[in-house]
Amino acid sequence: MTSRTGATFTSPIVQARHWLAATDLPAGKPLINLSQAAPMAAPPEALRREMARLLEEPATHLYGPVLGNPDLRDALAQKICAQYGAASVKDTHIAITPGCNQAFAATIAALCDQGDQVILPVPWYFNHKMWLDMSGCKAVPLPVGPDMLPDPDQAAALITAKTKAIVLVTPNNPTGTIYPAPLIRAFMTLAQERGITLIVDETYRDFLKSDARPHDLFDDPDWDQTLVRLYSFSKAYRLTGHRVGAIAANPDLLHQIEKFLDTTIICAPQLGQRAAAWSLTHLDDWLEGERKAILDTRQALIDGASPLTDQGWRIRSSGAYFAWLEHPYAENSFDLCQRILREEGVLMLPDTMFRPESDPAKGREIRIAIANIAKERLPELFQRLAATRALT
Amino acid sequence: MTSRTGATFTSPIVQARHWLAATDLPAGKPLINLSQAAPMAAPPEALRREMARLLEEPATHLYGPVLGNPDLRDALAQKICAQYGAASVKDTHIAITPGCNQAFAATIAALCDQGDQVILPVPWYFNHKMWLDMSGCKAVPLPVGPDMLPDPDQAAALITAKTKAIVLVTPNNPTGTIYPAPLIRAFMTLAQERGITLIVDETYRDFLKSDARPHDLFDDPDWDQTLVRLYSFSKAYRLTGHRVGAIAANPDLLHQIEKFLDTTIICAPQLGQRAAAWSLTHLDDWLEGERKAILDTRQALIDGASPLTDQGWRIRSSGAYFAWLEHPYAENSFDLCQRILREEGVLMLPDTMFRPESDPAKGREIRIAIANIAKERLPELFQRLAATRALT
Repeated sequence: MTSRTGATFTSPIVQARHWLAATDLPAGKPLINLSQAAPMAAPPEALRREMARLLEEPATHLYGPVLGNPDLRDALAQKICAQYGAASVKDTHIAITPGCNQAFAATIAALCDQGDQVILPVPWYFNHKMWLDMSGCKAVPLPVGPDMLPDPDQAAALITAKTKAIVLVTPNNPTGTIYPAPLIRAFMTLAQERGITLIVDETYRDFLKSDARPHDLFDDPDWDQTLVRLYSFSKAYRLTGHRVGAIAANPDLLHQIEKFLDTTIICAPQLGQRAAAWSLTHLDDWLEGERKAILDTRQALIDGASPLTDQGWRIRSSGAYFAWLEHPYAENSFDLCQRILREEGVLMLPDTMFRPESDPAKGREIRIAIANIAKERLPELFQRLAATRALT
Repeated sequence: MTSRTGATFTSPIVQARHWLAATDLPAGKPLINLSQAAPMAAPPEALRREMARLLEEPATHLYGPVLGNPDLRDALAQKICAQYGAASVKDTHIAITPGCNQAFAATIAALCDQGDQVILPVPWYFNHKMWLDMSGCKAVPLPVGPDMLPDPDQAAALITAKTKAIVLVTPNNPTGTIYPAPLIRAFMTLAQERGITLIVDETYRDFLKSDARPHDLFDDPDWDQTLVRLYSFSKAYRLTGHRVGAIAANPDLLHQIEKFLDTTIICAPQLGQRAAAWSLTHLDDWLEGERKAILDTRQALIDGASPLTDQGWRIRSSGAYFAWLEHPYAENSFDLCQRILREEGVLMLPDTMFRPESDPAKGREIRIAIANIAKERLPELFQRLAATRALT
């Protein structure tokens, strides 16, 4: 029997959990889990206190509007305007979704039909590929260059009459690469010229290295004719378990997205929405501390990597939540990651999970979620990875 | 541009909210909103207290397993076994979803491909129709008889090589009809004989009139070869805003469903899952009170309806959350519902929202969510509806 889910593969996150369940970890080496990108701790105490208070409001337990609570939609529009130095984003541009994965799914459902095409830079975020498979759409791979950046000219050559959108994830999942503002602008221009949509997933935007705004797309008064911008509250405010994400898009497109959200979720969880609205106006300083901590971990990774690089490992890219490593072993990254879990108790995802099956480049690289490890544990991580022996 | 969402209509709930926003309510007649089926109040105090406690556990804020938390999966399996006098349902049969709409969406994605067919009794639940539209599947209408029940023989005649499933909603949304156990069994037999899936949505099962078990399908040791059973924690425990529903199905089918859930939601909201697990083992007595209250409202509707029936209204069916009324007016129910909102401040959904556009029967009936009104306000409702004048 064929079905929509039959058109795609088992989620890498699920697969990694199966590995974990099936593996006896090595003695004396407690698990270092760098697989799923997620905060490891509860939200700050002030937010937890506010959430407890919100439980006393009946509306926290009831349905809300399909596109999200008005105050959160408004607060996010204002935040975007402040962050991007723009005045063009209004509450009517915002939809609140149960996480950023559902934001992507709803956007694709509103843009694409059976047989349509969407261009994804490779390595790609596996859930994007999975949703396109389940939607009957073709994910068209756009391999990044040695600098880990996609090339707009190469993308232009891939556009067909069936192409509905190009997707950029910046800071990137899986590589951690932060796309330069002019590159993002070049993709916007390409999308405008060709009459397709540019989807920019900024789930990790709160952990940028620079204070400069990451792109100037919201300067365009008619940005919403081309751009759909995705966001997640999960990483910034440690709200992963509460499922809150967002879409910024044209209100007409949001009317289409509303049909999808009404049918799949009715409304995003109310406690998460209310917590997100409070966080947007109360946690700027706290979030800055989070950003610093992750930037510190990244710097420590770069500064302290010689035990690894001496063994032939290379850090190909890093930023926000992720680093993308090239390993020195003869074996495929898919096998290697399982062996490192078995021998060294470190769980990482191989690049094979982020590439098309037919990709000739696959097997040499590994994603690590650096946000999942405290800076102080990095030497232990390096030691364990460096201890991984070559197979003879 | 065609898209998946372009293949379906605006959600009736959204449409009703637009009516409300655009209507000046009549003076002295505060809104009676019988449109959306939803609890109107917060969960009981004991549950709210438990939820506040759960916020202090870090795991409440983090991701959990895609198919749901093990303790909730186990508790629901045990509850089903107890409620249906069965021993055949295990934790491995259960998936936890962000609400029952997403349970349906995930099930269809796992069963159906582009161009497949699913049989829905009419009147149908509009979100089922919308999801089939967006999935590129054909919803095949099976009109119910004068007793508001679907006929398995008629269903048999509609099955083609493309048919993947029949969907029953019992107690029914929108009509409130409770399908007799032998009828549900007859549909199971039909599905078994024809090698298709029977989806039974029991969102409203906690408000049944009788204490007898509603069907015997779980008696079959191999029920999961044919049956997919959907459930919602939203109505029973007033957890609508927290988005928790469930699927009971074959573990192999759940592996397919897991791909969908991983891609759309990652995991159902954690607070809702933990609240549901606690509720399953602590709120039986409280839930029995909820059931009694709704049954009382329904009985009061039947006993006190003479102001309505004197005007030519008829209660065609009622049960659990809903009653299905036939109106005596010449105009179409779609127009009439908007006029009643304008003139009498009562919001109800016309049967046109629950039928195919081409249905010759449409326009004569109206759904009311009786769970949304206190028994004491029924006389006022009757008075307002009876006051609706015929158009001359």
